[in-house]
Amino acid sequence: MRRGSLHGETDLNSVTFLSPVQEQIKLVEERMRTQADESHPDLRAALEHLLAAGGKRIRPTLGLLVGNMLGAEEWRLVTLGAAVELLHTATLVHDDLIDGALLRRGMPTLNARWSPPATVLTGDFLFARAAKLAAETDYLPLMKSFSETLAIIVNGELTQMFTSRGLISRDNYYKRIYAKTASLFEMTARAAAMISPTGEAMIESMRDFGYQIGMAFQIVDDILDFNGEQTAVGKPLGSDLLNGLVTLPAIYYAESNPEDLDVLSLPQGGWTNPENMARLIENIRLSNAVAKSMREAEAHVDRALARLESLDESIEREALENLAKYIVDRKI
Amino acid sequence: MRRGSLHGETDLNSVTFLSPVQEQIKLVEERMRTQADESHPDLRAALEHLLAAGGKRIRPTLGLLVGNMLGAEEWRLVTLGAAVELLHTATLVHDDLIDGALLRRGMPTLNARWSPPATVLTGDFLFARAAKLAAETDYLPLMKSFSETLAIIVNGELTQMFTSRGLISRDNYYKRIYAKTASLFEMTARAAAMISPTGEAMIESMRDFGYQIGMAFQIVDDILDFNGEQTAVGKPLGSDLLNGLVTLPAIYYAESNPEDLDVLSLPQGGWTNPENMARLIENIRLSNAVAKSMREAEAHVDRALARLESLDESIEREALENLAKYIVDRKI
Repeated sequence: MRRGSLHGETDLNSVTFLSPVQEQIKLVEERMRTQADESHPDLRAALEHLLAAGGKRIRPTLGLLVGNMLGAEEWRLVTLGAAVELLHTATLVHDDLIDGALLRRGMPTLNARWSPPATVLTGDFLFARAAKLAAETDYLPLMKSFSETLAIIVNGELTQMFTSRGLISRDNYYKRIYAKTASLFEMTARAAAMISPTGEAMIESMRDFGYQIGMAFQIVDDILDFNGEQTAVGKPLGSDLLNGLVTLPAIYYAESNPEDLDVLSLPQGGWTNPENMARLIENIRLSNAVAKSMREAEAHVDRALARLESLDESIEREALENLAKYIVDRKI
Repeated sequence: MRRGSLHGETDLNSVTFLSPVQEQIKLVEERMRTQADESHPDLRAALEHLLAAGGKRIRPTLGLLVGNMLGAEEWRLVTLGAAVELLHTATLVHDDLIDGALLRRGMPTLNARWSPPATVLTGDFLFARAAKLAAETDYLPLMKSFSETLAIIVNGELTQMFTSRGLISRDNYYKRIYAKTASLFEMTARAAAMISPTGEAMIESMRDFGYQIGMAFQIVDDILDFNGEQTAVGKPLGSDLLNGLVTLPAIYYAESNPEDLDVLSLPQGGWTNPENMARLIENIRLSNAVAKSMREAEAHVDRALARLESLDESIEREALENLAKYIVDRKI
């Protein structure tokens, strides 16, 4: 913890997005872990497994940084962080079940070890405890925002399920990644500001910060599916497209190459021809579609950074800048 | 609607538990129906299907009667009723998926028509909208109570999944039916009182009323599995036991017949022998275990009725009495 020394130039330069909150993140994880304390031992084990599988805890980090910067009470921020991360975990549990995914971040998924019924109910349990935690922040507007976001996320997944196989427009893509990712980033940053002693303008500013880095985060995720290091990403390159999910690089490629036969075959089930799909994925990788997508992610990050400009210098502001930059620089 | 004439003896005698709220129940159903208005047409169709499958709307009825009696605002009660019934519907959707049930109330279940992924997500969507509706009651203690109840229900289902195959104690059974059924009845009655202009004693009284009729409701449900009319119940008699679920009549039978070989075989996988199971189910039907279980349900109803005694006469009080009595008299 270096929260004592706020103003040295050297200090600010060595801030990572995590360093100002690493002790609080432990509190968030502890809070998550205790959610199954009164439950069956098998469920406690499942939660331990999910927590051990880790993840970068970017969402709670975002909430903690915004709230610490604006003067929110720690207990509320920790509760919000645990609620948000548990909600995120719940959606992953059901997603992996639905996709039949056996690995996530190199660890076996819950459904790889458990029956589908146990996996469904464990996801439900996590939703329930996330909602309970959100209520424990003791602030009704936050609770409303939380439940609205849950509805947005699930509705987005359903829409994707009903419509994913086929080329989609960029507009459709933006809606999808908003529902899937940016909505929760947005809610987290907004909620952290809402429970701080600040005004509407700052709440709106932080909401937009969360929205912008959330959009950037998902675009970069979708880029990494094409050009990441396979061992780091932990799944085969182009796996989205192989699973029928058309993301921004593929959309840009299709816009620039409307006559490409592999592109044209997609809506007709081109997904079922592995050879053509491998060629298409390679062509997308070699095209400028990836760079175009990355410029778009960077534009979101620039808009996020602009939201920080008018703020007083602080260790948290520095960390939020680093968080925004990390999102486009990461390799995993 | 007969809400105009509160005091005639004749009127009170002809009150059913539903008559004072039948117009408001329509508002509840309308509120449920509109939850999918901005969603994919397939999801709207699924919700329509679930609503058409009906059910007796006992939970919203309970909330409306308590809240009308105590002077709550109608919009809050309708919102609460829709939240509670949608939560109930969400748990049924996931339960039917988990059990592989193809019919409920004589209608095809969602999972009989849809893929498991779509069914998982539809259940999630209903959870999300239930939480959103609960937040829209605009009363934080209600929201907390709602999310706690959701956690209790799901935790109960998980515990049942991990431990159901085997003889259980009555204590264990009571915990299970509290989680499964009585907790939501209890929450509904308590929440309806909480949003009314009344005091702690009345809230506690209504909470207990809901708890008692909820316990009775599930005990009667479990009795009907042994002695209901098969066509009315819509599943084979003894299906709980055939599915490895030991309920009160079976527990009482086992207590009185500890040496019964079919009982002794249960923990060793007796469920896999259909001939012995048919005999055991028939023996339970013919024993006094069913009557003992029914007396227990009636005792719960008596405790519920006692909670109404000190209340002023009203059409709602009369309807709540009828609701409590209906719960032990019903045949389906």
